[in-house]
Amino acid sequence: MPLVRVTLPGRTYSVRIEEGALAQTGRHCDSLRLGKSCAIISDQHVAPLYGSAVEKSLRDSGFRTAAITVPAGEQAKRLAMAGRCYDQLAEARMDRHSFIVALGGGVVGDLAGFVAATYLRGIDLVQVPTTLLAQVDSAVGGKVGINLPAGKNLVGAFLQPRLVLADPVVLKTLPLREFRSGLAEVIKYGIIYDPKLFRRLGREMPRLLERDFSCLGPVIARCCEIKAEIVGQDETEGGIRAILNFGHTVGHALEASAGYGTMLHGEAIAIGQAVEARLSEEVLSFPSSETRRINELLQKAGLPVRYRLTAPKLGRVLKAMQLDKKNRDGQIRFVLAQEIGRVKYGCAVPAELVRRVLEAQAGTLH
Amino acid sequence: MPLVRVTLPGRTYSVRIEEGALAQTGRHCDSLRLGKSCAIISDQHVAPLYGSAVEKSLRDSGFRTAAITVPAGEQAKRLAMAGRCYDQLAEARMDRHSFIVALGGGVVGDLAGFVAATYLRGIDLVQVPTTLLAQVDSAVGGKVGINLPAGKNLVGAFLQPRLVLADPVVLKTLPLREFRSGLAEVIKYGIIYDPKLFRRLGREMPRLLERDFSCLGPVIARCCEIKAEIVGQDETEGGIRAILNFGHTVGHALEASAGYGTMLHGEAIAIGQAVEARLSEEVLSFPSSETRRINELLQKAGLPVRYRLTAPKLGRVLKAMQLDKKNRDGQIRFVLAQEIGRVKYGCAVPAELVRRVLEAQAGTLH
Repeated sequence: MPLVRVTLPGRTYSVRIEEGALAQTGRHCDSLRLGKSCAIISDQHVAPLYGSAVEKSLRDSGFRTAAITVPAGEQAKRLAMAGRCYDQLAEARMDRHSFIVALGGGVVGDLAGFVAATYLRGIDLVQVPTTLLAQVDSAVGGKVGINLPAGKNLVGAFLQPRLVLADPVVLKTLPLREFRSGLAEVIKYGIIYDPKLFRRLGREMPRLLERDFSCLGPVIARCCEIKAEIVGQDETEGGIRAILNFGHTVGHALEASAGYGTMLHGEAIAIGQAVEARLSEEVLSFPSSETRRINELLQKAGLPVRYRLTAPKLGRVLKAMQLDKKNRDGQIRFVLAQEIGRVKYGCAVPAELVRRVLEAQAGTLH
Repeated sequence: MPLVRVTLPGRTYSVRIEEGALAQTGRHCDSLRLGKSCAIISDQHVAPLYGSAVEKSLRDSGFRTAAITVPAGEQAKRLAMAGRCYDQLAEARMDRHSFIVALGGGVVGDLAGFVAATYLRGIDLVQVPTTLLAQVDSAVGGKVGINLPAGKNLVGAFLQPRLVLADPVVLKTLPLREFRSGLAEVIKYGIIYDPKLFRRLGREMPRLLERDFSCLGPVIARCCEIKAEIVGQDETEGGIRAILNFGHTVGHALEASAGYGTMLHGEAIAIGQAVEARLSEEVLSFPSSETRRINELLQKAGLPVRYRLTAPKLGRVLKAMQLDKKNRDGQIRFVLAQEIGRVKYGCAVPAELVRRVLEAQAGTLH
């Protein structure tokens, strides 16, 4: 199965997309010269399913392990939860040479990653993503973080993992809604970087939704490859890495204003991509026929492209957007599409236009 | 007045030791290509004294400013306080290009630095240290962090400031006990690196205690130079940087077990240096006459070298030491002296010997 290398100045690491990889965690860690103790951070949904397999595998390879379980869902990505993890790491006497295994979806990866980046000023991290979204996106590239009441991922760090183990077998147990949410990021890679991938997703969507591994494995690998190429050029988002945020300016604002956890991340960025495609028409003359293709593919994946928007909610969404990390000197910045496969970052859009497109897009969330 | 350069791979920054530097903060920031907005994080003691001068200076240079004030004292170095700072930064719409000015002592510098290292995955930091301890130690070198109930500085990051402005004039308003606490770190530099500085401190201690600038300025500069040399060789403490922790293994444990804020950091590490000098005799045949010289200099500075230690407290101190960040695989590691001016790091010491020396050192805190 595919192996993707992420190459950064001074370091590289592997993303292994491998059926059965999860039960081989210990063996893979053993080859990395990590310390002899680790904490497995997981959540209440994933720990009962895969916690003991990962723990056994690590113990069999001679590691001392501790297990830390956090509540499932976006609500866990809070500072107070990071605090509980720190206390448990100290209690388990994890030292500077210990490492953290993040076993779960994007929330667990981001939270456990932030904890790893800051506990004792930073310890090693191994990502074992168990959702499609985490496998194609959040586990790769080193962005870790937590939410503030004011917005998503407003606190965080850059910490590249030492290894990413993506086992597509675990996607079998993923609820359909979660799986679809991951497809929103998969589609994004097509739009920002790879028109061939975009077309392929159109053809293969039914098989992907059946979680046909022969089809899913290569798609996951291609997404990781694209992310590795982009991150390899710009680790800390000084430039091109920003294109990964297509759909996210609106998406994050929707998540924040809906209350974290109401809307899945992928659902929010599906709507975000539809809205930002419309903005691209206005600002970069992106053809409306291409916006239609994007909407159709998102809908084929079972993702929403519209949402209900009352006036006070619109205000909250706009306010949340003003806290977006990409902003500069008070202006909201967007990643906008020029064509499918090519986008431009750092586009300032007048607030009035954003408001108008958001209002026009309003409808019933389905 | 002296200017010390800290040179790291890919970056350098200045430590300006300059009378009146504080009121020139804006001008100095202006030359650094920082963003146009900043938050001044200070505490309830320092903000009323110097907050408005720094704010005015920044505004006069065209920066938009916000002021965040935290409680004074070690208790502020908590995760919950970092959370309040994050919320206020978001409220003030600080973006990725904004920077933080840490105006205060070691606690403010460490807390504000940690907030800068993690807000929006890291923004720029300018350190304006207002205590002797912060000027010679914590503001230089990029270690930032907060405490856990389990121990001091157990959560943190490495974030080099863009500039350090050390204005010796502000030391005039520093309470004597705080000033003495800073001298503990000054003396440490002599022990770990510079026998000439050690002898000079012996001669000049009375004038230093009078805060004679002509004497104090060069001493501060020499300490910053030593720290810059060490940090320049080893930014993230893979090796030699550990020598800066002489006295700190015991010192941190004393602080943690006494309850943060009971004992000043410098007081704890003064005792720590006395204890670790004794351990050096046992482990590295450090001459007892040298331990005596260390104790005498610490006492000349008005610092404690002994403390009262009940049996349950001894247990707590030993337990806290077992969480020290320098430990590896459960063994407590020390920095020990070979002679004044030369130390060795990573020395494993049997727990039994540590207990024995701690017990022998017990006495009345003065």
